[in-house]
Amino acid sequence: MSTLSTALRTAIDGRWAHVREEARSELEPTRFAPPTEELTLEEYRARVAQQLRELATTGHPARGLSKDVGGEGDFGASVTAFEMLGHADLSLLVKAGVHWGLFGGAVANLGTQRHHTAYLPRILSAELPGCFAMTETGHGSDVQSLQTTATYDPETDEIVVNTPSVAARKDYIGGAARDGRLAAVFAQLVTEGESHGVHCVLVPIRDENGEPMPGVSIGDCGAKAGLRGVDNGRLSFDHVRVPRTNLLNRYGDIDAHGAYTAPIENPTRRFFTMLGTLVRGRISVAGGAGAATRTALTLAVTYAGHRRQFAAPGGEEVRLLDYRAHQRKLLPPLATSYALMFAQNELVSAMHDVQSSGGDPDPHAQRELEARAAGIKAVATAHASATIAVCREACGGAGYLAVNRLPALKADTDVFTTFEGDNTVLLQLVAKGLLTDYRDTFGNLDTLGVARFAARQFAGSVIERTAARGLVERLVAAAPGRDAQDAVLDRGWQCALFDEREQHLVDTLALRLRRAAEPGADAFAVFNDAQDHVIAAARAHVDRVVLEAFVAGVDACTDAAARAMLDRLCDLHALSTIEADRGWFLEHGRITPARSKQVTATVNGLCAQLRPHAQELVDAFGIPAEWLGTELVAPLE
Amino acid sequence: MSTLSTALRTAIDGRWAHVREEARSELEPTRFAPPTEELTLEEYRARVAQQLRELATTGHPARGLSKDVGGEGDFGASVTAFEMLGHADLSLLVKAGVHWGLFGGAVANLGTQRHHTAYLPRILSAELPGCFAMTETGHGSDVQSLQTTATYDPETDEIVVNTPSVAARKDYIGGAARDGRLAAVFAQLVTEGESHGVHCVLVPIRDENGEPMPGVSIGDCGAKAGLRGVDNGRLSFDHVRVPRTNLLNRYGDIDAHGAYTAPIENPTRRFFTMLGTLVRGRISVAGGAGAATRTALTLAVTYAGHRRQFAAPGGEEVRLLDYRAHQRKLLPPLATSYALMFAQNELVSAMHDVQSSGGDPDPHAQRELEARAAGIKAVATAHASATIAVCREACGGAGYLAVNRLPALKADTDVFTTFEGDNTVLLQLVAKGLLTDYRDTFGNLDTLGVARFAARQFAGSVIERTAARGLVERLVAAAPGRDAQDAVLDRGWQCALFDEREQHLVDTLALRLRRAAEPGADAFAVFNDAQDHVIAAARAHVDRVVLEAFVAGVDACTDAAARAMLDRLCDLHALSTIEADRGWFLEHGRITPARSKQVTATVNGLCAQLRPHAQELVDAFGIPAEWLGTELVAPLE
Repeated sequence: MSTLSTALRTAIDGRWAHVREEARSELEPTRFAPPTEELTLEEYRARVAQQLRELATTGHPARGLSKDVGGEGDFGASVTAFEMLGHADLSLLVKAGVHWGLFGGAVANLGTQRHHTAYLPRILSAELPGCFAMTETGHGSDVQSLQTTATYDPETDEIVVNTPSVAARKDYIGGAARDGRLAAVFAQLVTEGESHGVHCVLVPIRDENGEPMPGVSIGDCGAKAGLRGVDNGRLSFDHVRVPRTNLLNRYGDIDAHGAYTAPIENPTRRFFTMLGTLVRGRISVAGGAGAATRTALTLAVTYAGHRRQFAAPGGEEVRLLDYRAHQRKLLPPLATSYALMFAQNELVSAMHDVQSSGGDPDPHAQRELEARAAGIKAVATAHASATIAVCREACGGAGYLAVNRLPALKADTDVFTTFEGDNTVLLQLVAKGLLTDYRDTFGNLDTLGVARFAARQFAGSVIERTAARGLVERLVAAAPGRDAQDAVLDRGWQCALFDEREQHLVDTLALRLRRAAEPGADAFAVFNDAQDHVIAAARAHVDRVVLEAFVAGVDACTDAAARAMLDRLCDLHALSTIEADRGWFLEHGRITPARSKQVTATVNGLCAQLRPHAQELVDAFGIPAEWLGTELVAPLE
Repeated sequence: MSTLSTALRTAIDGRWAHVREEARSELEPTRFAPPTEELTLEEYRARVAQQLRELATTGHPARGLSKDVGGEGDFGASVTAFEMLGHADLSLLVKAGVHWGLFGGAVANLGTQRHHTAYLPRILSAELPGCFAMTETGHGSDVQSLQTTATYDPETDEIVVNTPSVAARKDYIGGAARDGRLAAVFAQLVTEGESHGVHCVLVPIRDENGEPMPGVSIGDCGAKAGLRGVDNGRLSFDHVRVPRTNLLNRYGDIDAHGAYTAPIENPTRRFFTMLGTLVRGRISVAGGAGAATRTALTLAVTYAGHRRQFAAPGGEEVRLLDYRAHQRKLLPPLATSYALMFAQNELVSAMHDVQSSGGDPDPHAQRELEARAAGIKAVATAHASATIAVCREACGGAGYLAVNRLPALKADTDVFTTFEGDNTVLLQLVAKGLLTDYRDTFGNLDTLGVARFAARQFAGSVIERTAARGLVERLVAAAPGRDAQDAVLDRGWQCALFDEREQHLVDTLALRLRRAAEPGADAFAVFNDAQDHVIAAARAHVDRVVLEAFVAGVDACTDAAARAMLDRLCDLHALSTIEADRGWFLEHGRITPARSKQVTATVNGLCAQLRPHAQELVDAFGIPAEWLGTELVAPLE
């Protein structure tokens, strides 16, 4: 690997660089490799289940649990190690994420001592495979409206878990179809005839022989577009009884007399506090999406560097990557992948700090973390879908063959845009966060929360602070005037455009949504009329956060050559983002038509400048060669 | 089905409406259904091979051959019937397209009487499964540079077919891995030490027992992203000898003395004339993409019409399709699918007329047909990929399950953007056509042809005529002034924008490319610098052609209610297309910022207006219920 690639790798490997390095060798690329042959659904599931057990022996999972419950408490390391697995097989990543992250995370974060002692050791060792049974057929995004019930029966001191309708069936549940023994079931908790909102109850779903427990019906979701190694299934409960102590009781408990108690009074706040502890799942999906995207870019860029088609006059056939159209397909997404990697590193770091702080985290930091995770997840997964599709196309017929990995990368990540939170819903969540302090004031996460909350606000958003905010403000202050010829390559000018767009969109959104509070207003109509605006504001916000993470990353880089390269990549990322939304900037008079054309010309110029370094730029991702061993990376004799 | 749906169906079913109706019943939706269970690769291939034999008995394939070679000569009917198959299983569509369309088409169009007599009956009946062996591992887009050789040996009066390198191996060949017996092999023809360019030779690849013929090595491409029922494989030839008469000799022949003769002198023109006869493959891919897109839209719109999520204040849970963001995802693509259906109908009609004219077609009409086919194929397949992805996302987890068909629609059509011509290359072909008369003047189809040709041109393009051109010109002439408030809903205003964009892009492109002729110019650099411009010009051209097809379709509709509905759909298609490229229109002063915002607001308004009719709009596609029988179309209990 070139010196430049090594220096770039150091810059993007981030705070847990040592974990990435360790994973590159210790995850044993041959042992955790993607399958090289077509497997049946059952063969694939068996393979991944076995890999999961092997993963349990590596010590990586223990990092994800805090020390007081028997883990190592290195959360950032845990998420980073799993992100590296995303270069190998996304089925394994998701299977591991469901078992340790979601199921184990529910037991650890929503349960108390008795659950930790009883279950965590066997969860860590993967002896007790688990399911995270939240989504129902009828309710996916709106999990607060789940219909499964968990009713306390004082006669027997048990909780009765029941599925009242097909719509209430737990659906798409990873691990349910084949391996899961114990499920963390989210259900409306009822005591003494009163509902306390959604809580989580542990329900055994299979016995030691793998047979369904009495009253539990298990269905199989069958083949999916991708993630074939994950055994998604359906769970229905016919008045299944479990001991009262199976309630994960950190945020809501039933005492020995059958009385319900909770440390948080408001049921909505309580529910979203519970959900908030599970934020790592969303962060891991963003990380997995990033890893898959970098794998696809490595394959497509490498291929385009040696594949030739059509001869130049009197010359050799031209390498694909020398065509501008091909550069345009691959290099701006490559720059954005760098940007997202810095943003992901920041997010993981923030998660680590919030969750390592001991005791209950600072509510403001926690809320910021959740909004950040939602936004990065939405943007990173959309970027993955779009970029992997482009990479497939850029490799033509070769990109369509399973042996060349792009089909699996595409199919496996496809669902990332809608699971762990549908991207549209997540961006609404981000927008809600932008309208500040909504939760304390308002405490309602349905889609109207935004409208009703914002209706009470004055316009006048404040740009939320990021790590790089001070630096960005200095850059913006020093930016050349609007008319300066070379402004487009000035970081301050670029940052100012991102800032202005976000502020304008948030300010005007708040104004629009105020109408919902006018007498006789149809709150839904007001919200719905502004829904695109809501999403655009969130998107602009995330764009700014991502750019600032890149700016901070460049600033932190001490190797001169790597820093210069990152600087150019940051230009390409910023300008191609501006170019993609130039309609907005022109409509709002933020750039002139001439400037807009200059942005496009500069993007073209940057692509040409970066082209000779493209291979080094993907080599810097440091993906083990065993995971890239396809026909795409090796030129024909 | 509603009266409106029926009237809309009549309008979009087009010239071969009777064939569509026939196909809806006679193709027997249960017999030609997509698989409902996960099959192994070999099971799927066997299933599709069997369906192909059954299809042979329906009489549809005979329509695709002209009467003088034993067919029925109803080419439009043939292509339309196969388009309908695209609603069922795209593996079957592609398998049939390879066997009858490409392989059969090569024998019929490139061969002469002796080949017709010897092979066509058994091709029609599917007793002789064939392959179309053009693409090589090293040459896909640039087929003129294929490396396989076909060398005439006067000693034995045979042709020796040889694969000189791995790069020259025939690759991704449908039918090669399992079923093919005879291959139409494209190779550089050499006689008396002289190469005559690419010709097609029939080479037996398997014997009666299915064993490879001596000297033929057959590889298997294995699993692919989709199209699992198509047995793509690899063919290598080690000096395989076939009789001289196996040369498909319509455009180039070797006489009994070993001398080469050809009706077209220029080898490049000869080759592209040969290719031109095979235009129907590209048209069928566009048709299949359209059918798959309509299937996906039918599933997603139906689902969004009954699926509810999040309650409105004090009300029921809201149907997904009542959310603006959801309307935005599905309704503009739905409008564009109508537009593309009209454009496809026009294209099929033009193909039918050109190919039914008897004798060699008019070169101008043929060239126009090829450019039109290339452009519609590129745009329709890109639309399919984007729209099917959106439909999957719009159905969330349910959209990811194989049982709900969206995964297969997505995976199967993914390769449509790059096979039968990579879309980027095809758009360059369209641009070349726009720079008029290039071929007679210039005769070179490599990517530099554009630059070298255009260098000799003056700027000043002429809008190519379409069926609706007269009508459009009247509409444009009658359009309200630029400042008129209601202009955006005026068809003439919309058409004028499409016209102006195309003209401006083509004019400025010609000017730019002239630089390639300046002394000392680097022609490749000039071309490459303008490559994005080339593609934008082509895209703008196709956009105009598609819009004009829609305008003609509205004009031809005699049912008042259907016509009014089509009118609104046409508005939505036109305005969402303008909105997507509003950056360009603003940059070039074609719309003001205020007008641009009005376009967006009008798109939103049209979505709301069309929403109550969404189900009727997809019902009008007339997809047999058996092919839609998924969990998405039926509300829970």
